[in-house]
Parts: sequence; C-alpha cells; structure tokens
Amino acid sequence: MEEKYTQGDFTLPGEAGYEELTLRLARRWGADVIRDSDGTKLSPEIVEAGYKIYSTICIIRQHNAFAQAHPDAQQQTFLGSRPVVAAEETVEIPLLAGYFTEQFVLNETPEALALMQVWDRTANVEVPRENWRYAQGSVKVTGCVPGRSYTANFLCYRVWEEINMYNHTTNNWQSEHLRQLDPRHPEAWAYLQDWLERWCVENPDTNVVRLTSLFYNFVWIWGEDVRHRNFFTDWASYDFTVSPAALAAFEKQYGYALTAEDFVNQGKHQVTHMPPTQAKRDYMDFIQAFVAEKARALVEIIHRHGKQAYVFYDDSWVGMEPYGERFRSIGFDGLIKCVFSGFECRLCAGAQVPVHELRFHPYLFPVGLGGLPTFAPGGDPARDALSYWKHVRRALLRQSVDRIGLGGYLHLTQGYPDFVDTIENMAREFRRIKELHAHGGPLCLPCKVAVAHTWGKLRSWTLSGHFHETDKHPLIHINEALSGLPVEVRFLSFEEVEQGALADVDVLINAGWAGDAWSGGDAWKSPRLVEAVTRFVVEGGMFIGVGEPSATEGYDSFFRMAPALGVDKDTGARICHGRWACEAVSGPVTVYPDALGDDPRLMLTDGAAQVLCEKGGAPQMTLHALGKGLGVYMSDFRVSPQSTRMLLELLLLRCPDAARRLYLSDTPWVETAYFPADRMLVAANQADETVTTVLRGEQGDISLTLAPMETRMLPL
Amino acid sequence: MEEKYTQGDFTLPGEAGYEELTLRLARRWGADVIRDSDGTKLSPEIVEAGYKIYSTICIIRQHNAFAQAHPDAQQQTFLGSRPVVAAEETVEIPLLAGYFTEQFVLNETPEALALMQVWDRTANVEVPRENWRYAQGSVKVTGCVPGRSYTANFLCYRVWEEINMYNHTTNNWQSEHLRQLDPRHPEAWAYLQDWLERWCVENPDTNVVRLTSLFYNFVWIWGEDVRHRNFFTDWASYDFTVSPAALAAFEKQYGYALTAEDFVNQGKHQVTHMPPTQAKRDYMDFIQAFVAEKARALVEIIHRHGKQAYVFYDDSWVGMEPYGERFRSIGFDGLIKCVFSGFECRLCAGAQVPVHELRFHPYLFPVGLGGLPTFAPGGDPARDALSYWKHVRRALLRQSVDRIGLGGYLHLTQGYPDFVDTIENMAREFRRIKELHAHGGPLCLPCKVAVAHTWGKLRSWTLSGHFHETDKHPLIHINEALSGLPVEVRFLSFEEVEQGALADVDVLINAGWAGDAWSGGDAWKSPRLVEAVTRFVVEGGMFIGVGEPSATEGYDSFFRMAPALGVDKDTGARICHGRWACEAVSGPVTVYPDALGDDPRLMLTDGAAQVLCEKGGAPQMTLHALGKGLGVYMSDFRVSPQSTRMLLELLLLRCPDAARRLYLSDTPWVETAYFPADRMLVAANQADETVTTVLRGEQGDISLTLAPMETRMLPL
Repeated sequence: MEEKYTQGDFTLPGEAGYEELTLRLARRWGADVIRDSDGTKLSPEIVEAGYKIYSTICIIRQHNAFAQAHPDAQQQTFLGSRPVVAAEETVEIPLLAGYFTEQFVLNETPEALALMQVWDRTANVEVPRENWRYAQGSVKVTGCVPGRSYTANFLCYRVWEEINMYNHTTNNWQSEHLRQLDPRHPEAWAYLQDWLERWCVENPDTNVVRLTSLFYNFVWIWGEDVRHRNFFTDWASYDFTVSPAALAAFEKQYGYALTAEDFVNQGKHQVTHMPPTQAKRDYMDFIQAFVAEKARALVEIIHRHGKQAYVFYDDSWVGMEPYGERFRSIGFDGLIKCVFSGFECRLCAGAQVPVHELRFHPYLFPVGLGGLPTFAPGGDPARDALSYWKHVRRALLRQSVDRIGLGGYLHLTQGYPDFVDTIENMAREFRRIKELHAHGGPLCLPCKVAVAHTWGKLRSWTLSGHFHETDKHPLIHINEALSGLPVEVRFLSFEEVEQGALADVDVLINAGWAGDAWSGGDAWKSPRLVEAVTRFVVEGGMFIGVGEPSATEGYDSFFRMAPALGVDKDTGARICHGRWACEAVSGPVTVYPDALGDDPRLMLTDGAAQVLCEKGGAPQMTLHALGKGLGVYMSDFRVSPQSTRMLLELLLLRCPDAARRLYLSDTPWVETAYFPADRMLVAANQADETVTTVLRGEQGDISLTLAPMETRMLPL
Repeated sequence: MEEKYTQGDFTLPGEAGYEELTLRLARRWGADVIRDSDGTKLSPEIVEAGYKIYSTICIIRQHNAFAQAHPDAQQQTFLGSRPVVAAEETVEIPLLAGYFTEQFVLNETPEALALMQVWDRTANVEVPRENWRYAQGSVKVTGCVPGRSYTANFLCYRVWEEINMYNHTTNNWQSEHLRQLDPRHPEAWAYLQDWLERWCVENPDTNVVRLTSLFYNFVWIWGEDVRHRNFFTDWASYDFTVSPAALAAFEKQYGYALTAEDFVNQGKHQVTHMPPTQAKRDYMDFIQAFVAEKARALVEIIHRHGKQAYVFYDDSWVGMEPYGERFRSIGFDGLIKCVFSGFECRLCAGAQVPVHELRFHPYLFPVGLGGLPTFAPGGDPARDALSYWKHVRRALLRQSVDRIGLGGYLHLTQGYPDFVDTIENMAREFRRIKELHAHGGPLCLPCKVAVAHTWGKLRSWTLSGHFHETDKHPLIHINEALSGLPVEVRFLSFEEVEQGALADVDVLINAGWAGDAWSGGDAWKSPRLVEAVTRFVVEGGMFIGVGEPSATEGYDSFFRMAPALGVDKDTGARICHGRWACEAVSGPVTVYPDALGDDPRLMLTDGAAQVLCEKGGAPQMTLHALGKGLGVYMSDFRVSPQSTRMLLELLLLRCPDAARRLYLSDTPWVETAYFPADRMLVAANQADETVTTVLRGEQGDISLTLAPMETRMLPL
C-alpha cells in the first residue's frame, strides 16, 4: 500500500501517564484525533499535542451526590416477582426474590405502589386490589385458589448504572457504584443541562463531545444467584425508560394508561424479538420523541460552545435508533459504532448523519465481551482484530464510513507488537477503500434485495445487540452475509410491503422463527400481505424464506407463503399426512448443508419443489416455481463464506444473464468489489490460508493468488 | 414347560389344498380352533376334523354386483382439493388432482354437489356459491383476488375397499377391485342383513363368525403420484363414515348441520392426534351410536343361528372402540386383536367382552406391514415372532387374555421349521401364564398410575394405529413401557381430572407435543385443570410430564404445569432471559439419556429442579419438589428396556418403602411377575443374550441366570 494512506481518519484512545506511547501510536496509526475512554483521562501533554480531541461523556452517570439527594430522580423499571403456588387461601410473595439487590431497590412511593399489580397467572387475571396488601418488600394475597400461581408486578429504582456494574464485575473495580439520573425528572434535567454547560466551559480543548450514549441503557436485569446472574438482556427493549412520570405523560398524550403488565408481560417482558403490541409501539414512539427532544437540547448546548456532538451507538442508546424517524432531528455531527461484524458497519454507514465512525474491536481491555482474555495472558488481540476485520472489510467494500478508531486503555497494547502492526495495516487499508468510494461506488448487481420484518427500517441491519447475542435468529446471519454482497439492501415493514413497497424489489427475504418479529407472527394473518408477496412472486420476484418464514397458526398452511415455497411445516395437525418422497438433486446453486437446519417436520406441499438438500427425509433447501417467479426455502442459515456464496448464487438467479459473475471470484473464500471510476478491482481473501481464484473480467479471466487475509488492489 | 400346556386356546389359520399341513400344525401348536383368512378357504376335510371353526367375514365387502346396481350405496368421504393460486380473477380447480383415482370417484349427485364448498384459504373464508360453478371434475371460481389461494371441498365415492386395495398392491393381486357398502343406505342395509342371514344358513359348520371388522375402514387416502402414495392415514379418524344421508340424520338429531369443512379442515382433516372440535365429538358420538345399533343387529342374526360373533379389532373398526360407552351393548362374544406390542395386548385384555384373543404377528404373508419380507427370501419369521413376543409376554404377565392365534396363508410356514418351533413354545408359555392368572393376579406395586389426555378411556392404551405409526408421540412409548410394569394403569380425560378423578391416583402422566390431543392443547387453558393437577402434586402426588406436557400459549409459562415441573420451554418470548446454569447431578433414578430428547429451548424456571440429564446446557430430565409432591420432567421418552426401567424407578419414588424392589430384578433386561396364589415367580429375559440377575425375595435374594429370551418359572 502506498505511503499516502498512512495518515488521518483515525481516533486513538490516549491515556494520561502514557504520553510517549500515546503520541508514538498516534503517529504510527496515523491518528488525527485523540479520545479519552471510560476509565482513562488525557493529560495536558496529550491534549496540547495538536490533535483534535474527543471527550467521552455518559451524561446520566457520575452524579451520585445529586442521585442521593433526589432518589426519585433515579431511573426505574418494572419487575415481575417469581410465581408463588398457593397451597392455601393466602400466599406471600417476596417481590425481589431472585433479583440482584445491588441493582434494584423497591420504589415504595405512593405513585409507585399505585402501579403495583398482583396477578393470578393460572387464570391470567389481575387480583383485585382489596385482596392484597404490600408491606416490607412482600405482598400478601388473600382469597387465593389453592393450586394457582400468583405473581406481583412492581416498580424498582435501578441503583447501579448497568455499564458501571458490568465493568466493576469484569474488571474487579472497587470504586463507588455509579447511579443514573432520569432526564424526565425536572430537577435532574435542569441539573444535567447545567452540568453539560459547565463541562463545556471547563473543557475548552475538546473538539468533539462523544456521548456514550444518551439516557436509557439497554435492558440488563441481573439475578441474585450466580447461576442466574444473566436474568434478562435485550439491547433494544424500553423497560428501563419507565417511571410514574413517564406513564402519566403517556396517558395524557395517548389518552389511555399503561399498566405494569404492559411491561412485565407475564414475566416475559416485551422483547424486541417478538412482535410488539400497539401499546408498545405507542410507548416506543413516546420515548423516542422524548429522547430526541432532550438529546436535541444537549446537542444545542454543545454546539453553542463551538464543539461537535458525536454519539456512540451502544449502552444507553434506547430511543435514539439511527434509522428512527427522529434521529436526524437531534442534530448529531457524528455516529460512532463499535463493530465486530459487517452488519454493524452497514448500520453505521447507512445512517443519515455527517460523520460515520467505527470503533474497532477488540476494546483495549484485559478481557473481551465474552469473558475471554484479549490483552491478558492467553489473549491474542492481533488475531481477534483480524477476525473482526474480516467481517468489517467486506462491508466497507460495499459502503464506506468516514473514520475508524479504538477505545480503552492504550497501555495494554504494550507487549503486543503484532497488534500494533495489524491496526496500522487495517487503518491503511481502510483509507484506501474510503478513497475508492469517494471516487464512485462499487459495481452492484442489478438486484434489489428487501428484508421484510415487523420493525422495518427502524431495525435495519441489526436485530438487537451484537451478533453473538442474537445468533439463534437466522436473520442476523442473513444480514451479516448481505452486508458484504454486491446488491442493494433495504429493510421493509410488513405494512410497507402491503402498501406496494415491492414494486421496486427483485428479491424479498423473510427469515425468522414462528411468531417472532423477524418472521412476523400475526402480521401474516393479513390476506393483503400474503396476496402482495404471492403476486410479487407470480409476477417474477424471488421470495427467500428462511427458518419458519411467514408462519402463523389458523390457516391451511403454517407457512403462509407455502404456495410460493412449495414447503410447509407440520405443527402436529398434518402428522397423519404422508410425506412426498424427498430426494435431493443437484441444482443451479452450490448447497452448503452445514448452514441449513435439520427440522424433521418440514415437508413438500405439492411435490413440485426442486429439493437441493434433505435431511432425514425432510426438505431443508428447495427451489419452487410459481408463475414467473421463484420461491426459495432454507430451513436455517448460519453465516460463513460458503453460505454467503450460496446466498449470492441464489440472488444471481434473479439477475439478467449479462451481469452474471462479472468480477465475482470462483471461490467462496475470495470476495471482490470492482470500482469502475478508478477501474480498481479489490479482492479480499477471507481465508486464513493462501487462496487462488479466477475472476471473469470484462477483458477476460483474471487469475489471482492471495496471501492469507490479503486485500489485493488490482488496477484494471 | 410341562406337557399339560400343549393344547387349547389356539386359533390356527387353515388352508384348503394344505389339509395335511393344517391338521399337523393344529396338533403341533395345540389348536382347538381353525379359521379361514382373507384370501384362503377351508376345505370340508378341515372343517370336519373336529375343530371349532371361525369364519372370517368382512360384511361390507364382496358385494360388487349390488354396489354396481346401487352406486349411491357405496361408502364416501370428503376430500379437499389442492390449493390453486389465483394469477387472475378466475381460477380453475381440478378437484381430484393428486388423488389416487382408482380409489375415488366424484359424487356428482345433487345432494353431494349441494355439500361442495370453495374456500379462499388466504383469507380463510368460504367463497359465496354464486362465485363458482362445478363442471366435469373441476370448479371454476370467479371474482378471485390475485395472489390468494383457493380450494374446494367435495364428496367422493370410495370405489376400492382399502384393505383390498392394500392387499392387491402388496401381493400383486389381479382380481376384481372390491367395493364397500354403507350400511346407512337402507337398501344396502336390508341386503347386508339378508346376506348374513343366508350366509349363516349356508355355513352350518361355522361356530364363530369372525367379523373383520364392521363397516367403516380407518381413513386411508392414497395419492396419485407414487412419490406421494401415502396421502393420509389415520386409524381412528371418522372421515370414511360420511354421506349426505349421515349428515342429514346428524342435523336432525343434533340440531345443527355439519359442512364439508368440518371434515376437510383446511386440508388437514380431523386427526386423532389433535384435540377435537365439539362438532367432531358430536359426530363421533353419532357414528358410534349408529355402528353399535347396526352391529347389534348383525350379532343378533349370528346368535339366532346358534353361532358366536367375535370381532377383529382392525381395519373397519371405526366407531366400535372397545372402551367406548356402547361397545358392551353390541353383544360381541369375543374381541380379537392383532398384536405387535404390549399396549395392544393390554388394550384387548382390558376390554369388557367374554373372550379376548390375540392374533400374533407376523401374519402369514410374504411381506410384513412395513414392506419387508417375512415368509419370503430374506425374511426370518421366527425372529420376527420373538421380537413381538418380547413385547407381548411382559404385558401378558400383567394381564392375560383367553386365546391366541395366527392368520394368513398356512402353506407359507413350510420351509420355516424355526418358526413352527417358536410358535409352539410361545403357545405353551402363553397357556402357562394364563393359568397363573386364573389362580390369582400378580403382585402389583401400591402405585396407581393415571395417564391423562384429551380422549381419556376411549383411547385407552392406543393412540391410533400400531406402534410404528404413532412412534413420534412419546405417549405410545410410555404406554408400551407401562403395559408390562407392575402398576395399575388407567386413562383419564381432562374433564375427569377436573372433576376429582385424581383422588385415587398416585402418579399422573401427561405426555405429548404442544397442541396435540395427548398433551392436551387448549384443555390446559382451564384454570380448574391446572389447579387440580397442581393441588394433586402439592398434596403428595407425582406428576410426570413428557415432551411438551400441559403446553399452551397465552400464559406466563408455556408448560402450564411449570410450577410443579420447575422446567419450561421458551417459544421465543423468553429468548432474552438468561438461563439458569444447568449441570446434571446423579439422583435417585438411573438415567438413560438415549430415551430423552435434546430440545435446546428447555430451561429451568426457578433453579430448584434437580437436573438428572442436560444436553447442550438445557435440562432434559429433572425432579422438582412442590409441596409434598414431585414433578418429573422428561423431554421425550423412547421405549426400551433401559427407559422402561427408568420409568419404573420413577414410579418407585412414590411407593412406600416396604414394597420397594420386592421381586424386581436388578437389571433392565429381566422383567418379573410374582403370582402369590401359586407362589410362582416368573422372570422374563428381554435380552437376546444370557443375563444374570439378583432379585430381592421375601426370604432373601434370588440369583438367576436366564438364557436369551427365556421365560423362567420359579416356584418359591
């Protein structure tokens, strides 16, 4: 790589006490920005070295004195008690039993107690208030039916900010447990604005305020028992935004009241993976408006002080979804996303904001998110960085961002020269790729792909959280595969599909498990939706169904798109139906069976599908013609180079012949992007070994041999 | 075995043309009865040899001339067409497309056409009659919505009696296809009675008329395509009983009309494995009354001629369930059940009828039910007979029948001397066991087991059909295991459980998959049911849940008995809940993991269950205390000697200590029965190899070494 890609667009985490290291690595990695991190500070020597400065702020944290003085300004959440079986006519329910009491404290104010509920879960009815009494952390219920189970819903203060709680536990921090303020509390809100105002004054060297993130953490409920410490985790849930004040404001605005049960939901909570109730949709809209309004006020303060406001999309981001309707209105100058995966890169790159920045992994911490060592004995941070880069690079080849960077304790890099080299190379490759994009986008197949699910564009690319947290869902695998494929990708809600959004689409993907938000659940009860997608296929579209696509009970087929797919799943009522003999044949696509499932309850509907993969006599991958179009079924999809290639080959079935395979390699292990403006072919070896491949170019075949993980820039 | 057990209680299939063989094997096997079979006749030499004679009659078959003259007397069924996707506003639905047209002919009479329906399956609504027209085997529908799927429900004559159809296909018969008459047709009914009357006159040597069986075959729908020949099979379904006359009579009696859709049910039909609608319950009652009434009339004719009427419980048995309310009222003198399995033996033995007879397998046919050779090259009928005997023997040790026998072509036994020996031994052992029972029943553990499912006692022991046809359902495995265990077993409906039937029960078993008739589906929405079973546990009972017991959607737990089991299953809404760490420990029961499932979505509810088996971090077998009782969970149950022992050990947990393990062997491979009246211990080696075992007797330990498959009779 030429010398000119050595500088710029790189954010380095500086560290007071390691000034020489900071400045040396800043030069080495070509940093133009130095930042602080959670747990590190910058010294004057660093701040005055001529770099642009990002300063990290978690606005709702680090105000323990105020929190102590105003306990009702602390953030809250509804919890549901464990069910208690009535042996007699009276039961006692200890409310917090099973919860981590360092995280939660009962809210015993009259407003909170007024929101408390007791439920007969066996009959699924609320117990009248006159039948129970709260005292000292427990509810005593009378008039119970022996044999039934009872629970209580109650409001808690969250007294340990969850990221601080995590860092304490992970890194054995011994410092004070930080609390978090709710900006809905008028005094807290006034205090936070003043605080930010003052902070801006006191930090004249800061160019960019890096908000980490806004107000409400993703929902992270811990259990008391270490065997059950991870009680509940949902990166996109709204439980942690609630308070009596929020509920009162909601009722005033929407004309109806939410109850504790709208949140506790039989103890299940309202998870992002499931279709929302209308009440949840309303509440999300309500919170999004609030978050945007308050965030806008903070950004205005920052701007007023001549600084820029970047937001780190993680931790306390709930309500500020980058693809939400109100995100642009906040006025952020930049969006920073930490990335393990390609889909996270696309999520950042596609957001409507001036600057898109990726914070690479590994974080400069002794251990990673999964608890394994990184910058610690047994760790190999260079290997880790490359393993993430493998995913990020292919996404960057499709759509670039503006900047990259790191975070954490810089001193930990000492003793890991491989890591320092790796980051240097990655930064250089990033700058080169960015320049190619600046001159014009890469060649794209004439294939517009839409992914349809309940949330539509609000949850573009991501489901909720990182890849490894949602990897039981086939859609995150599909999204990850798509993040580096040469096709246009959009995310549609089912309402949009019904309203004609498929007019401009070549391939529609629906991937999920029955009843979840990704498959769609009850949305598929709409004949309009089924009609629209079926007509789309009849008229020539491709419908790719993965897992339990379009599945809902109550109809002649469980998969509502069975007429297009030629495959359905027996949920018991068809167990007496004989199965079509199911023998796999080789078809137009190279099948990678490991990526598929092995559900024995899958079956052919009319025997007309071409079976590409069967397991145990049940079809796991099929092609089925309907009208001028094609239905494709895959029983699961686990992302890998091979399965990504399988998906690409499916998409190619919908592309006019002329475009087929131009500049595509003949192996799943090499991915390519051709940039016509610069006449530059980029070939990325996704394998950890040397790979030779042949590509079809406009002027004939091109043979390439790539070193492990090599990024080859080939002018044509 | 002593000489005196060589004669009697044995029914031999004779065969004209093989008189010497018939009489020789009659002596060898100790036959007291000779019978004919489907496809064989008895000659005068056999009939007059001094044996009692059974004559097989399939009353509704072999009347082709009458059927031709009265086509409307033929039996019928509703079928549903394949769905057709509307590309335009008109669709044409070819009704019989995909069905075996040698089996079905459209009923085009006005009464039948009046019952025809067209459905918009996408919207799940019936299409108004004015929008469609039937002509020449097809329905043309107008006003369709493009993209929707349409089907038609229609009435067919069944023009090939299904057992004849099967025998033709299996044995390459070339004879005329036999048709079947519907006794509901007045002229047919008069004709059938006359025919039986005449038959009795013309067959003076017949002592027992062996009815095979009554009127309506189990539902067996064949597909046109050989890849889909087995279109639908349900041994307990009522589809084949229907006709315009039946529907008219039903409406008159019940005050409401059934439609084609009540049978076709979105193309799913009403399978026995699923909970019935109220309409189906009513219709079954209606048909049962009809079958009993007509059967009673036939039995009266037979009795009037001084003959006995035995019924063979197979093939055309629909509506005469031996545990139905009306079975006794028919007046049969005997019930004959063919047996592969122990549960079939108990099903026969427990029916209220004077004589219980088992017809052993293999049937004397070249190939068996599964299509593998028996009395043909590659077959080993002696091995097959022993493999079934292994199951039947242990059931006979718990409850005896009165007689045994065989069926088929006797000449096929030539060249299989092993088989002849094996049957001789089995017959002798049977007679010995029968005598022990005659002197008094075997010792039973003080443990009353109830199995609760939708059908209750109507479907005691059996689900529907043979073991191998229902083996995806854990309950048939449980029933088979129970059939030879030293406990009392009863079958309860959920209504009976609600109404207090558990008062006299020690262990309640619920085994099935979510939504099916065996798990219970919506029945578990009743708080009364959940209360009753939970109270039963709280007060000291054991609840054994297998598979997806008590599962239904809409409540805080998917398994409604989760408070007793301590285990639940995530159906998606709890995917964000962390799981309790799940480590298996050794408990009071020897676990046989192969018998269990490996469902990764199972989880502990409160962490209190003792995990006996986990797979992939999910609990597959647990014990969980509730009050004075115990909840036991198993994720599946596949019957084997080892899993049968595991079930026995679970039951022993509920027995007072004094009774524990008396006369029980210390290995799963040996099963025992102690007959106190004769002070006789019977030990059966279920293994194909020599096994040594030690038993705890009242006077001390007993050590035994048993030859492969040996039945040891040990006087104590």
